[in-house]
Amino acid sequence: MSKLIGMDIGGTNIVCGLVDVQGSLIHKVKQPTEALKGSGYVFDKIGGMIDQLLRETNTPRTDVSAVGAGTPGFIDPERGVTLFAGNLKWTDIPTAEEIRRRTGIPTFIDNDVRMYVYGETVCGAAQGYEHVLGITIGTGLAAASVNRGHLFYGSRYMAGEIGHLIFPEQIPYTCGCGMTGCLETVASATGIARQARDLIRSGRSSVLREWFRDTSIESITAADVSKAYDVNDPVAVEVMNHTGQLLGRGLAYAVTLYSPDMIVIGGGGALAGERLFAPMREQLQQSVYSGYWERLTIAPARHIDDAGIIGSALAAGQRQAAMN
Amino acid sequence: MSKLIGMDIGGTNIVCGLVDVQGSLIHKVKQPTEALKGSGYVFDKIGGMIDQLLRETNTPRTDVSAVGAGTPGFIDPERGVTLFAGNLKWTDIPTAEEIRRRTGIPTFIDNDVRMYVYGETVCGAAQGYEHVLGITIGTGLAAASVNRGHLFYGSRYMAGEIGHLIFPEQIPYTCGCGMTGCLETVASATGIARQARDLIRSGRSSVLREWFRDTSIESITAADVSKAYDVNDPVAVEVMNHTGQLLGRGLAYAVTLYSPDMIVIGGGGALAGERLFAPMREQLQQSVYSGYWERLTIAPARHIDDAGIIGSALAAGQRQAAMN
Repeated sequence: MSKLIGMDIGGTNIVCGLVDVQGSLIHKVKQPTEALKGSGYVFDKIGGMIDQLLRETNTPRTDVSAVGAGTPGFIDPERGVTLFAGNLKWTDIPTAEEIRRRTGIPTFIDNDVRMYVYGETVCGAAQGYEHVLGITIGTGLAAASVNRGHLFYGSRYMAGEIGHLIFPEQIPYTCGCGMTGCLETVASATGIARQARDLIRSGRSSVLREWFRDTSIESITAADVSKAYDVNDPVAVEVMNHTGQLLGRGLAYAVTLYSPDMIVIGGGGALAGERLFAPMREQLQQSVYSGYWERLTIAPARHIDDAGIIGSALAAGQRQAAMN
Repeated sequence: MSKLIGMDIGGTNIVCGLVDVQGSLIHKVKQPTEALKGSGYVFDKIGGMIDQLLRETNTPRTDVSAVGAGTPGFIDPERGVTLFAGNLKWTDIPTAEEIRRRTGIPTFIDNDVRMYVYGETVCGAAQGYEHVLGITIGTGLAAASVNRGHLFYGSRYMAGEIGHLIFPEQIPYTCGCGMTGCLETVASATGIARQARDLIRSGRSSVLREWFRDTSIESITAADVSKAYDVNDPVAVEVMNHTGQLLGRGLAYAVTLYSPDMIVIGGGGALAGERLFAPMREQLQQSVYSGYWERLTIAPARHIDDAGIIGSALAAGQRQAAMN
């Protein structure tokens, strides 16, 4: 019983990894989610992926003490139910029980961002810090707070939605949640690309316009904006500065309310690195009481791709042990 | 061992109360703090107040299992040290040990606002709610979060400083903390009075100018602004609306990050009641995702004067029991 399985069930892909109890990833397999084929199809696929993972690593099923899975959206980790996950089109799906039924292994689920931050806290960039605030910059922007090893959940497990702090004076975009000015409409991979496209449409000159002469500027991604930034493109520089500053303001609010000693930043959008982090840090320092700033460490995630798998495996191991 | 003592050590007064284990206040005594005479003087006075309390209630000292004290500022509740309390002029004072030495009773300390919110959670307006956010509107503005009976502390016990969320676009005032735009420079009793004075100085006509014809407008208090509001004074109405709206914005950030199911509002500034709460609620509803708003209860504190005493007594009882 010395192994764990961790999963990240995303809107695009499912990744499933075998992890040892120290949090080392031994092997992983990946498949497209194909959420449109329905949750039953997805769970059958997950059952097959776990079979494959055990087969490819010669691991007897009885060696695995628990499966942990992170899914996006609102999760009830105590009942093991995915309450609502927009990009999987799941509402009130008993995810833990569906996986357990197909594998025979005790299964625990939680929100994917919480599992990512938990993974980074237990054996990543935030290891050894007592009060960790983690954010993931991806399609959206979300956060989780881990204090002395305990995740902070709040009512209906909805704490940490930093992407839905609103900045109506600075952000004109309407969010999928129904509000206008949500931080994640700019401070996310999609938000960075969207701002660049909008500036180009407004007539601003940019190297991106040339790069995308033969295709629609709709295909511009955050990675393209990073590339344009590196050749000093004024649109890309403006987008990164504006995004970093707003992210710094949002983090200032989170720091003042949570008082972390470490902020760990992950997700695909974190690949923008210092282009985003430099203006973010500057704004954060200006926007929090110096007593917070002085003892605050900020670092990128260590397991940028795998923190979610490692975190959900280790969290499941903890929860299974607590039941025995 | 069926009784507890709770204390609120403020910049102006010390209140000391005998509380039963259900949280009912049996009797209390009050004295001016006289902090300028030094912490030794204050602790001797506290020793005398506890003697008086026991004498006046015919309570044998051996019946009291613990003393709890809330002090303002930054506290280390684990070591029992007041790290910094500006309005007591205390830095690194071993408050718990000083009180224990003078009373012979195990003593525990914590931040006064956390104790206030804990008191309201255990046996006040927030009783029965799992995830409580409490704020106190007084000289300053502060918050505490209690989840399933556990206070949230953060690094160096500095979580919850809602008064230091900054709104630089809306608030021109410099705060004692060194930043400009801190919420508590407007959303506090002092902030309400200050805004009214500044509008009057800028030439706006107000009934307050007449009421304070013979004395300096410097003596205007938040209570005076409430009275002026009740006769439809345009300055008072503008101040209450502006303050309520900004408080609503600040609470929106706190709700999005903590996800409470109950917000309890206490402190002297809460006596403004609906004059402040109506614009606050309206702004809060507009500034959070509807999923938070739908299940949120907002209520004024029940023990508006005594929540701090009751909370520190009960918290001390809990901590003493946990040590046995």
